[in-house]
Amino acid sequence: MSQDAPTYVMRPIGTVRSPYRDTSQIPKGPGAEHRAEGALELRPELEDGLRDIEGFSHLFVLWVFDRSSGYELVSTVPLDQETPHGVFASRSPRRPNPIGLSVVELLGREGPLLRVRGVDMLDGTPILDIKPYLSGLPPEKVRRGWVAQAEERRNSRP
Amino acid sequence: MSQDAPTYVMRPIGTVRSPYRDTSQIPKGPGAEHRAEGALELRPELEDGLRDIEGFSHLFVLWVFDRSSGYELVSTVPLDQETPHGVFASRSPRRPNPIGLSVVELLGREGPLLRVRGVDMLDGTPILDIKPYLSGLPPEKVRRGWVAQAEERRNSRP
Repeated sequence: MSQDAPTYVMRPIGTVRSPYRDTSQIPKGPGAEHRAEGALELRPELEDGLRDIEGFSHLFVLWVFDRSSGYELVSTVPLDQETPHGVFASRSPRRPNPIGLSVVELLGREGPLLRVRGVDMLDGTPILDIKPYLSGLPPEKVRRGWVAQAEERRNSRP
Repeated sequence: MSQDAPTYVMRPIGTVRSPYRDTSQIPKGPGAEHRAEGALELRPELEDGLRDIEGFSHLFVLWVFDRSSGYELVSTVPLDQETPHGVFASRSPRRPNPIGLSVVELLGREGPLLRVRGVDMLDGTPILDIKPYLSGLPPEKVRRGWVAQAEERRNSRP
């Protein structure tokens, strides 16, 4: 791919409403559970795009790490502060394209606003896309590399 | 969100290598299985970002529907040609931000190239991001709305 490969301009479809104002408030690292309630607030003119979304229990949300800047190809992350890992093998916010991916539970809808549980984004985060969650891989098929090892190390500490 | 909300410029990190040259070749609709092998070819200068990725069995790939243009808030899709659904309640390629999301199985790595199974993208598709797949929701917790209904209708036909 050449240096002058095309770029793509993304315009947010809406904004995350979250109890978190600062990244320090978001649970991170091993065993972090995301149970916080919040909302996905769409631009009103896009409301028709939500037709029939109420039937889905969970959604993928694609969003922008808008309070992060630049990227690091290799870095340490909260889950494993001993060994640096590649950005594409982690969920580091400092990515070449700063896109975040979350799975949230859909609690209800009021017009262009979706009430959800499981937000791990900051309040005001720009949303790029919402997609229905259709199926997950069975746990026995998923190998989780350094993440599983870091969790094991943590759990085996006295 | 006002009309002059900020936009975000994304530059692909690499390119999908796939057996599919045309969307008509990609299995779609109910029961579509994605077993095709292909590759995710990163820009060589980003190779360090793959460090430790070999430990993960599956990856999320975020990519651009680069051969789709414009969007429709409500449309019919291959899985259900009877009833139109909202774009955020479907995987339609004609989205406000044309980002696709796939889960692929990681088969191996050669430098900046990841060999994968389960591609459902066209050859040459620009890749925006790669993330490790860490866990899936148990099937009994997932409600799949109109998708489940459309599958049932199809299966109950003589």
